[in-house]
Amino acid sequence: MATITRRAVLGGTAALAAGGRSALAAAPLTGRQVPGFYRQRLGSMEITILSDGAGNFPMPDGFVRNVSRDAAIAAAAEAYMAPAGHITVPYNATLINTGTKLVLIDTGNGPSPPGASVGLLQANMKAAGIDPASIDVVILSHFHPDHINGVKTEAGTPAFPNAEIMAPQMEWSFWMSSDSAAKAKTDMIRVRVVSAAKVLGDVAGRVTRFMPGKEIVPGITALDTPGHTPGHCSFAVASGAAKLFVQSDVTHLPDLFLRHPDWHVMYDTDAETAQRTRHRFLDMAAAEKAPVIGYHFPFPAVGHVEKQGKGYRLVPVAWNAVL
Amino acid sequence: MATITRRAVLGGTAALAAGGRSALAAAPLTGRQVPGFYRQRLGSMEITILSDGAGNFPMPDGFVRNVSRDAAIAAAAEAYMAPAGHITVPYNATLINTGTKLVLIDTGNGPSPPGASVGLLQANMKAAGIDPASIDVVILSHFHPDHINGVKTEAGTPAFPNAEIMAPQMEWSFWMSSDSAAKAKTDMIRVRVVSAAKVLGDVAGRVTRFMPGKEIVPGITALDTPGHTPGHCSFAVASGAAKLFVQSDVTHLPDLFLRHPDWHVMYDTDAETAQRTRHRFLDMAAAEKAPVIGYHFPFPAVGHVEKQGKGYRLVPVAWNAVL
Repeated sequence: MATITRRAVLGGTAALAAGGRSALAAAPLTGRQVPGFYRQRLGSMEITILSDGAGNFPMPDGFVRNVSRDAAIAAAAEAYMAPAGHITVPYNATLINTGTKLVLIDTGNGPSPPGASVGLLQANMKAAGIDPASIDVVILSHFHPDHINGVKTEAGTPAFPNAEIMAPQMEWSFWMSSDSAAKAKTDMIRVRVVSAAKVLGDVAGRVTRFMPGKEIVPGITALDTPGHTPGHCSFAVASGAAKLFVQSDVTHLPDLFLRHPDWHVMYDTDAETAQRTRHRFLDMAAAEKAPVIGYHFPFPAVGHVEKQGKGYRLVPVAWNAVL
Repeated sequence: MATITRRAVLGGTAALAAGGRSALAAAPLTGRQVPGFYRQRLGSMEITILSDGAGNFPMPDGFVRNVSRDAAIAAAAEAYMAPAGHITVPYNATLINTGTKLVLIDTGNGPSPPGASVGLLQANMKAAGIDPASIDVVILSHFHPDHINGVKTEAGTPAFPNAEIMAPQMEWSFWMSSDSAAKAKTDMIRVRVVSAAKVLGDVAGRVTRFMPGKEIVPGITALDTPGHTPGHCSFAVASGAAKLFVQSDVTHLPDLFLRHPDWHVMYDTDAETAQRTRHRFLDMAAAEKAPVIGYHFPFPAVGHVEKQGKGYRLVPVAWNAVL
């Protein structure tokens, strides 16, 4: 990485502007953010949250199905999302080094145009010193494109060439069935059936399907958290007495759906079930006082959940400068 | 930076443990955190918050002068500080590229032992691609050691060799006077008079003293926020219509003193004045809805302040993956 310092810029010139200040005295703006990875210990494990970036767009009509667009915009404004009327949706995958396995939960938006604000997982993984070829297991929480598309490279080859892919059996049955597109109630589902087939169809032989309620990798237990999608799973990660939860999309944006757990995000396949799952899951996380990683929480996407009024609040982790 | 991947480790061996798993199949834990810098735009300026790390230690007796140690510990526990009975104190300097000047506000704890969890400013500045020799101006908010000690290197030479140092006139008068140690009411003040003289005494000729209430660098106005120390200053940074505040130590740890603005941190020279300053400053920041950077806020140490009950709350910034 080239580092341009003011001195380097000054090296080639002694030009002074009329006012006596060098016109080139300014250090150039870097325009560069710190890499998006964040580490914390969990017992003898090492957890690395990997940002896939964030998208910012005008609040879609019906983003929250059961409240007005104005109410949704007001909640976004309370979280200082900008510009007015827009929302910011972050994406964060979780890498777990169990001590014997390197396990990646979800894979981000995948190949994206240069300069895009999403699709940053591979770059951030590289910055974190992790070779994609060293990933042993990729676990998919559910089959929405922002979670599975990173399974493939731009060229369509496996992005994690040595990894076993583990997917919820129910997700596979729902999204990979040729029936699902035909039976789909909405265009959103139809489009996603097609995209799931495109990403996972030709690597079916590398995919292990699992049922929730079991330890699917030593230290990682899949939890049945349906509603967002039929087979949507979350994960409990434990090492010794230490535990954390990877909630996947139980709660979408915390400023909207953690604060208002009865709001329904437009992406839910079965919003009523998702709502029940959300209360059950968040009540458990609050009772256990265990950190929760949320795929759509602002990076570093980990914090504690507490009950607050009729909803919940997220207490973001206090950043660790060193491990 | 060497990157050790599982494949690299495996390269030299084919040894398999009895269970059929390679004893060396585990990717080593990295033990390495992401560098502690965070950037955001402010109009045409670029703001870089630079972590100097964080210290964790048992809650000192009298840390909050006017409430019990138990009450202070309870507030720390509500913020999930760990282990029980400890507090974590973060340190964050602010670098401002105004477009014509590179300005650093405060300098961190300075030279620290290898492996220390503080004194990380220089390393994080390097990771951010900033050459210390390119800093044009160092502004000191006040003369406590965790803010000024980074002015010098381990060898006692200037850490920012080309920078003008700007310091509040009142701070200079109080801490650099040979009278102050003699008149000091507490050992804490006496010790700090000696340490200020050690750091700043021999570079007095490079120090410009300023009065608050003025724009001391184009775009940066010093604000009179006394109490924590006699000449303690905060800063308003403005570019076009965009504005933010660098509050320095108006509020120490937000989980204690923003939530409870009438609590007195043990480091205050005049706690009653500091309390009045805190309300005045935080009311202003809340009314202006401008982001506030806090030296002792958890990294990235920037957020919006809102009134909440009898106190305030901090809404941490939503992380920007790209600028």
